[in-house]
Amino acid sequence: MKNETLVVRKWDMFELSLNGPRTGNPFVDVDVNATFEYGNRQVRATGFYDGDGVYRVRFMPDTEGEWHYTTHSNVRELDGKTGSLFCDAAAPESHGPVRVRNHHHFAYADGTPYFPFGTTCYAWTHQPEALQAQTLETLKHARFNKMRMGVFPKHYIYNENEPLYLVYETDADGNPDFARPNVEAFRQFEKQVAALMSMGIEADVIVFHPYDRWGYCDRSYEDDARYLKYLVARLNAYRNVWWSLANEYDFLLDVKPVAQWDRYFHIIEEHDPNRHLMSIHNGEVSMKFDHRKPWVSHVCVQDWDVKRTDQWRREWGKPLVNDELEYEGDIPRPWGNISAQEVVHRFWITVTRGGYAGHGETYMHPDDELWWGKGGVLRGESWKRIGFLRELIEEDVVNGLTPLAEEGRWEWSRVSGARDGDYRLIYFGEHQPKEWAIGLPMEDGDYEIDLIDTWEMTITPLEKAPLPVSPALRQRGGELRGGEPEAAFGVHLPGKPYQAVRVRRRK
Amino acid sequence: MKNETLVVRKWDMFELSLNGPRTGNPFVDVDVNATFEYGNRQVRATGFYDGDGVYRVRFMPDTEGEWHYTTHSNVRELDGKTGSLFCDAAAPESHGPVRVRNHHHFAYADGTPYFPFGTTCYAWTHQPEALQAQTLETLKHARFNKMRMGVFPKHYIYNENEPLYLVYETDADGNPDFARPNVEAFRQFEKQVAALMSMGIEADVIVFHPYDRWGYCDRSYEDDARYLKYLVARLNAYRNVWWSLANEYDFLLDVKPVAQWDRYFHIIEEHDPNRHLMSIHNGEVSMKFDHRKPWVSHVCVQDWDVKRTDQWRREWGKPLVNDELEYEGDIPRPWGNISAQEVVHRFWITVTRGGYAGHGETYMHPDDELWWGKGGVLRGESWKRIGFLRELIEEDVVNGLTPLAEEGRWEWSRVSGARDGDYRLIYFGEHQPKEWAIGLPMEDGDYEIDLIDTWEMTITPLEKAPLPVSPALRQRGGELRGGEPEAAFGVHLPGKPYQAVRVRRRK
Repeated sequence: MKNETLVVRKWDMFELSLNGPRTGNPFVDVDVNATFEYGNRQVRATGFYDGDGVYRVRFMPDTEGEWHYTTHSNVRELDGKTGSLFCDAAAPESHGPVRVRNHHHFAYADGTPYFPFGTTCYAWTHQPEALQAQTLETLKHARFNKMRMGVFPKHYIYNENEPLYLVYETDADGNPDFARPNVEAFRQFEKQVAALMSMGIEADVIVFHPYDRWGYCDRSYEDDARYLKYLVARLNAYRNVWWSLANEYDFLLDVKPVAQWDRYFHIIEEHDPNRHLMSIHNGEVSMKFDHRKPWVSHVCVQDWDVKRTDQWRREWGKPLVNDELEYEGDIPRPWGNISAQEVVHRFWITVTRGGYAGHGETYMHPDDELWWGKGGVLRGESWKRIGFLRELIEEDVVNGLTPLAEEGRWEWSRVSGARDGDYRLIYFGEHQPKEWAIGLPMEDGDYEIDLIDTWEMTITPLEKAPLPVSPALRQRGGELRGGEPEAAFGVHLPGKPYQAVRVRRRK
Repeated sequence: MKNETLVVRKWDMFELSLNGPRTGNPFVDVDVNATFEYGNRQVRATGFYDGDGVYRVRFMPDTEGEWHYTTHSNVRELDGKTGSLFCDAAAPESHGPVRVRNHHHFAYADGTPYFPFGTTCYAWTHQPEALQAQTLETLKHARFNKMRMGVFPKHYIYNENEPLYLVYETDADGNPDFARPNVEAFRQFEKQVAALMSMGIEADVIVFHPYDRWGYCDRSYEDDARYLKYLVARLNAYRNVWWSLANEYDFLLDVKPVAQWDRYFHIIEEHDPNRHLMSIHNGEVSMKFDHRKPWVSHVCVQDWDVKRTDQWRREWGKPLVNDELEYEGDIPRPWGNISAQEVVHRFWITVTRGGYAGHGETYMHPDDELWWGKGGVLRGESWKRIGFLRELIEEDVVNGLTPLAEEGRWEWSRVSGARDGDYRLIYFGEHQPKEWAIGLPMEDGDYEIDLIDTWEMTITPLEKAPLPVSPALRQRGGELRGGEPEAAFGVHLPGKPYQAVRVRRRK
């Protein structure tokens, strides 16, 4: 290999390809990694075997300028290789990996706010190529910016077909050989991670899940650890990767106890110099993980009781993503058959309580092409309204929304509202007041006020109106209670459900 | 007074009128009560002063046959009066007071099941007579069988008019004289309790509440205790009385701490030989009373999070009545502006999780005639569907509904269902499966199955269908999970929200 300087853009992937041994079991026998240096800073990148005698070390530079690398290996021909790369400015569409910011929110590494509006296609990368292409086509116009997707294929109702590639090579007895990953399967998976990256979609990579008929859940702890190292070595240099340790970790507790899950987090940390976001998703609503652990970057929950979003957020002190508030659909499973209107309702409640929500779609289909499992096309009605909500949020929110519940009024346990400075978004949902004031600005000013019909996706200007009811409510023998005015003004509303009010200060 | 035998029907009221002193303050100075004897059994009835030198002792006989009484008093002319009454069989429409039965349910004293479907008109007995008459007229066709109503008038938004009668006489300074109840006010109140009784409606009498401008909340503990004795003496012989110690007791905690509430329960017990039902209602959802205390007969809650009904029921081990799951209406208060559909939805969820729910209506009105405060007419849409639900329950339920959640399947945290032996009622709400099996009978048989549209109030027969999805779901490396069949058969459903399925065994 020649010692030449290659150019790579910031947060893009630099890949070092090395030829090495093909004999024995290179997956197990050969260790290779590289140290990337920038001045006194050193970054360690773990390499992996990609078959056919090819070893790769991937690196995502985060600082512009010249980097030098040196390889390390237990095999002489892979050891001590050196070289340089020049890290150029990021491409205009590239903002780097997503990080936590402002305690409860996210931003890309370049500071651009990121508000997750994700969807779920658990096994889409395991479907026939044509269906995968259709999924990507759908995502072009669906306005989702995160995808939950499993490394492993899924065995479950409506998911009974064989995967495009088995994840491991097969031994003489027809069983998976956990010492030999099938590089075709991983190439396919990472090809689609890259495709999502090019569309600005984060890949929320589900590392383990319980829905298995191939024996993948039967691996030993050592097999799991080797798998994690391999997966992270292959994927960590894709800037759009998030590590979702599990779909429904609690259904695996009999084979992977909690301490083992902690250990999995640590193995990822050891091999991921980019510190991608890490979370873990529960099955039973009562079995949420202890998200306060420092290796959990943000809270991922499955729970339908979305008016508790601000409470969960407060309990764990991290960004809150409810990735399964139940899916739009009509299958005979309660997690997959709520109406489109209910999905949109739960998204609005979640967002106006300072959290983020994920979408999925489970309409029965003659060929079992349910979006949630296999991707393909969207057949429902909620995705359009979720896209509308995303646009509203991205138009104005800068620091992230803080629930009005934190200001102390009890009303926010029932109605949902949040603000970001002078920007306020109040969502009434099943509530249908004809007049309203609570949560509107306490000081008069030049405000632009709009009524938003969350289902019809219309925005209608509202005028200021007198405060609806006298605040000087006398209770208990003349004592004044609730005597403070609720706001500087009120608004008249149409008196029907699923409405929101937006307040912005005119500049 | 002549010693004659009067005839009174079981669970009707026997009233002993005695003439006594008018001088001093008879309310405070004179004690009168009577012992009613049936064989060796003795029942103590507390008497009260009704103005104009008249003292009354009321008694509700619960056993047919001859009773003898003797009065006791600190005033000679009221002491030692004796007499008899003959208790005849109950009137056909009279079933006696409502009691707890089967842990989580109610029945009248004669064993007839009672399923509460109540409404709320806090201050209806304090309105002009014409409006009170209109309220009774409305109740004739509204199909409610319980009314929450306050002894005291209400001072609150939309409740700013003066009451028909002040509850106490006024002293020289214009302040209420807590030593002198206004007998007109109590007569009016009990006249309406009796009117409800004649219509088969339980009077859930709210003893204290915080919404006051007359100084009633300023009474001392001694004043409260005297009031309780007076109220209970007057009302306990009405068989339809329930004691609701408070509307929103927690808003009164600064003047009435928890131990004092316990004491109020005890004072009622001391003067109520009929042991009417007793409950206490919270304001903040997080401030529910400790309903495990033995003097609390059933749980009364205010909470919107109705999918927790079965959990509350289990926690407290008593009948659960959610008397404020938010009201149908359009006022600018979140407890009083949910849609009719949402109210009906919450009623169905509550009932199909083994609880009971209460109604209220708060539509703005030019004369502030909101049903919840003043009665009058119903303007909404939920009351009709609640009546429909009541008829469904009364048609088939015998012992009361037990939540299917108690059978252990996790699905019942999301979808609601309950059974009473072979009778099953599954409510899908926002869920819209096209097929379903979970919760249907595990053994095949001759079942009558119906689809119920809870909003349209239609009942459509359903046929048995094959089980919708394979139950033999293999997970985790071949281990069988959920391998038991879900039911003996499935059903096809329309795939839209707010549907229920009813299963009955043909006789």
